[in-house]
Amino acid sequence: MTQNTPLIRPTDDQAISQAKSLIFGAKYGSLAFTHPQTGTPFVTRIALGTTPEGVLISLVSDLSLHTQALQQAPDCALLVGEPKAKGDPLTHPRLSLQCRAEFLPRTHENFQKIRDHHLKNSPKSKLYIDFADFKFVVFHLTAAAMNGGFGKAYQFSPGDLHPT
Amino acid sequence: MTQNTPLIRPTDDQAISQAKSLIFGAKYGSLAFTHPQTGTPFVTRIALGTTPEGVLISLVSDLSLHTQALQQAPDCALLVGEPKAKGDPLTHPRLSLQCRAEFLPRTHENFQKIRDHHLKNSPKSKLYIDFADFKFVVFHLTAAAMNGGFGKAYQFSPGDLHPT
Repeated sequence: MTQNTPLIRPTDDQAISQAKSLIFGAKYGSLAFTHPQTGTPFVTRIALGTTPEGVLISLVSDLSLHTQALQQAPDCALLVGEPKAKGDPLTHPRLSLQCRAEFLPRTHENFQKIRDHHLKNSPKSKLYIDFADFKFVVFHLTAAAMNGGFGKAYQFSPGDLHPT
Repeated sequence: MTQNTPLIRPTDDQAISQAKSLIFGAKYGSLAFTHPQTGTPFVTRIALGTTPEGVLISLVSDLSLHTQALQQAPDCALLVGEPKAKGDPLTHPRLSLQCRAEFLPRTHENFQKIRDHHLKNSPKSKLYIDFADFKFVVFHLTAAAMNGGFGKAYQFSPGDLHPT
C-alpha cells in the first residue's frame, strides 16, 4: 500500500529496525475496529504480547466489546509506540499497523504453546489466562505506516516487518 | 447506546466527573477512522485541543491521511487517558469517544475565535497554525465508554459529558 505522496521516505534498514523495535517493545496499544452495533470506527486500549515467533497477540475475553467486534469484522488496526513522559508526544515515533484478527480458541493446536510463552512474558496473566472465556487473538499484519516525527513518514509491507 | 451487559455500572456524578477530566486533560489521543484506500479501520496519534466552549478539536493538515479520511467518512473515534509511566497501563482509566468530525476551514465564521483560543493553549502551534493547508476539525460526541480499570466500565450519552 502506498499513499502516492512525496512525503513518504524510502524504506531503509534503519526505518525497518525502528519499526520492529516499536512492535516488539509494545506492552500495550490502541486497537481500532468496527463497532458491532454502530458499524463505525471505535478504539480501545489493549495489552499486547507475541507468539514465540514474534507475531503480535492479545489475550482477550469473550465478554469484551473488541472480541465481539473482531469476531464480526476481523479487519482492524493497532497503534504502538507510546510517548515518553517528557517532550512533545507528537514527535515520539509511532507505528500504525493494519491487521486482520484471527482467534485462537483454547482447543487450537497452537494454544498451549502460545499460552506458555505468554505466561513467561506476562506473569500477571496467570490470574485469568485459564478462564474459560479467554482466548488469544493473533494480529496478522497487512500494512504498516510509521510516523517518526515531523517529516519522517515511512510505509512498510508485511514482508518488511516479518519478525524472523 | 448500551451494550446490554450487566458489566456496565450505572452512570453517576463521580464517573461523569472522571470522564470529563479525561477529556479536558487530553493533550493528545488515538484517532480511529476508516482508511480511505482500504475501507478498513486505521488509527493514528493526534494532538488535541478544545474550542472556547470545551469541545474537542485538532489542528490538521490537508496533507495528512486522517484529514483525507475524515473528509470522506466523518464517523470516527478517539481514545483519551494516557497511562502513567509506572504501574499497569491497563488499570489506568481511559475513555473511548465515538464522534462525527466537522471541518472548520479558514473561512468559517468561528475559525478566528477557535484559532486564538488554540494559540493561547498550544503556543507551539503558531509555527504552522496560519499555513494554508491547516484547518480545524471539531469532534462532535455521539457516545462514550469509559474503562476505569478492571470491573469499572461506564457508558455515557453526549448530554452526560456536555462541557458546560
